[in-house]
Amino acid sequence: MDFRGPKCYPIDFCIYFCYTLCMMKSKKVTFADIAAYTNFSKTTISRYFNNPDSLTLENQQKIADALVALDYKENKVGRILASGKTEFVGILIPNLYMHYYAEMLNQILATYETYGYKFLVFAGHEKKDVERKYIEELLAYNIEGMIVLSPTISSEELAAYNIPIVGIEREDRCICSVNTDNYMGGVQAASLLKKCGCDIFIHINADLSKGVPAYGRIQGFVDICEEYHLLHELIFTDLSSSFEENRTKLFQIVENLEEKYPLKKKGIFMPNDTHANVLLNILIQKYGELPSTYRIVGFDNSPISSEAVIPTSTVGQQIPVIAREAMELLSMQMTERKKRKPTPLAEPIHKIIPPVLICRETT
Amino acid sequence: MDFRGPKCYPIDFCIYFCYTLCMMKSKKVTFADIAAYTNFSKTTISRYFNNPDSLTLENQQKIADALVALDYKENKVGRILASGKTEFVGILIPNLYMHYYAEMLNQILATYETYGYKFLVFAGHEKKDVERKYIEELLAYNIEGMIVLSPTISSEELAAYNIPIVGIEREDRCICSVNTDNYMGGVQAASLLKKCGCDIFIHINADLSKGVPAYGRIQGFVDICEEYHLLHELIFTDLSSSFEENRTKLFQIVENLEEKYPLKKKGIFMPNDTHANVLLNILIQKYGELPSTYRIVGFDNSPISSEAVIPTSTVGQQIPVIAREAMELLSMQMTERKKRKPTPLAEPIHKIIPPVLICRETT
Repeated sequence: MDFRGPKCYPIDFCIYFCYTLCMMKSKKVTFADIAAYTNFSKTTISRYFNNPDSLTLENQQKIADALVALDYKENKVGRILASGKTEFVGILIPNLYMHYYAEMLNQILATYETYGYKFLVFAGHEKKDVERKYIEELLAYNIEGMIVLSPTISSEELAAYNIPIVGIEREDRCICSVNTDNYMGGVQAASLLKKCGCDIFIHINADLSKGVPAYGRIQGFVDICEEYHLLHELIFTDLSSSFEENRTKLFQIVENLEEKYPLKKKGIFMPNDTHANVLLNILIQKYGELPSTYRIVGFDNSPISSEAVIPTSTVGQQIPVIAREAMELLSMQMTERKKRKPTPLAEPIHKIIPPVLICRETT
Repeated sequence: MDFRGPKCYPIDFCIYFCYTLCMMKSKKVTFADIAAYTNFSKTTISRYFNNPDSLTLENQQKIADALVALDYKENKVGRILASGKTEFVGILIPNLYMHYYAEMLNQILATYETYGYKFLVFAGHEKKDVERKYIEELLAYNIEGMIVLSPTISSEELAAYNIPIVGIEREDRCICSVNTDNYMGGVQAASLLKKCGCDIFIHINADLSKGVPAYGRIQGFVDICEEYHLLHELIFTDLSSSFEENRTKLFQIVENLEEKYPLKKKGIFMPNDTHANVLLNILIQKYGELPSTYRIVGFDNSPISSEAVIPTSTVGQQIPVIAREAMELLSMQMTERKKRKPTPLAEPIHKIIPPVLICRETT
């Protein structure tokens, strides 16, 4: 293309120019190749793509045959230009160490077969600035929506990006979300430990703020303990994504509990199955078995809970249901955006999925 | 824009048209908005983006200020058009159940901070046709390269896609790859079990073909056994990604081994740490401890090996090194592609990373 050439081009050529630029750069079959092969003008080829009705059926067929012969592959960048659709969705997870996140990612990726969306995945490891940079890059690529499990960026800031977003198990005041009924989970855990005849009820968790869905677990647990006048203790500690660190912290917690409640039957509700498994293994390493003075309930029903050396009781999150509902909620918003006059949501939608108590061998 | 308008447009307008189409569809600030704000013509705005040197520094500054004021966000779809670069890389993994894959994915995602590439992730679960459809979709979006851990599609077929690809731990005849020195791993495992004074040396694995890197583990193990005239047995079984199924199969294998070698000290080399952990838990559930007649070595050094109830010896794959080398090899090819006259690789490059034997409490 000679930029010093004529100063005027027909609109067809403009469109052709856009497409050719795409094609040239990706070194695929160009309109020129198709024109040369079919003996039609490039303008005719352009018309085939942009206004096929202006060609006879016979000529449409000739060009269609040429595309097959030349192994012409549709270039979606061209399609993005025309439709604004990228079919890309960003997923922001905190890490892949926690079995819950790995399984949730697995289930979200599996929705590709149903919805066709492709997922740009990032594990933020609590680096807020890197997550922010990543999101802004994705936005520059016109992604259609995001599923956010990372807790670092506030829902207010996320909402300001003005694209469809669904949060899972994180603060969700200004964005849509799908969460387990955490309060019910806390109630179920305390009730199960009560049935086991525990003397002291312990819940170990991070010192969560009330805005986080997981706070419901603490509230539900405490409410049952108070209702039945059960001796209980909340232990707030920051269990991180480093195994060694968690092991050291939980080891110390066990030592403290044994000093404080030496003869009592301890019912321990752990914040998730990954950490429940660390606790279980500490006890087995110490006693060669799970002593009858300890009962353990985890949270999530991630694979580690059934694969543990003693299959562990857990408040099950319905991970496949949550993944499906999140995509459904996101897809609904993304589809709305493509309408000529989209109606924005008046309020964020929050879906609550009931937990399923799974009794195994630690209660 | 009125398509029944004049039939001729200046080339600047063509470029403007491309950009505007992008902008309009993503509902971001358009050239028209910037023109209105600055009182320049749209053509001038277009020049700012496409040929800034044709404007005075003062006018460039005015437009730059307007972009900030209008919160203009760069639209990368426009940039893809101009550069052919998408900065997207596809990752195809078999599943997220195996701890090795989850950790490898984690390490690859972490290279974002170094290389800037964004990752489109898919877990294929051995569905060859779905994987193929997924790859072809990604190609239509002009992704720049792929990292493939899934074994389903032959390297010959992958190479025919004609984009930079790096395989990890899969058949790699026609594509670049980064693999652990599997043969050395098999040698290390057998040597360690020999040091433990085992009487019978057992390796459990899938019936791998010689073209797969992991076949080296079998060969290395057998070679050491033969060199030192050690009694050995290979047990070929398809351990799947379903925990329940694997548990049943391994339980039966333990029963058979105890019938066949009741008094012998059994040294078992497992194909990976996930399955080594299943075996370990079966033995502990049966005996309350790991009997001294069993020694176990896993493969990978994925997190489960150190987090197991008895920290498990393993032939460590250097997962962070493999991830980094894979991105380095891929990035090198992707950069080459962007040159005006790229030199294609004469032959696929295969990098071999040495394993690191990690002795813990099961040997």
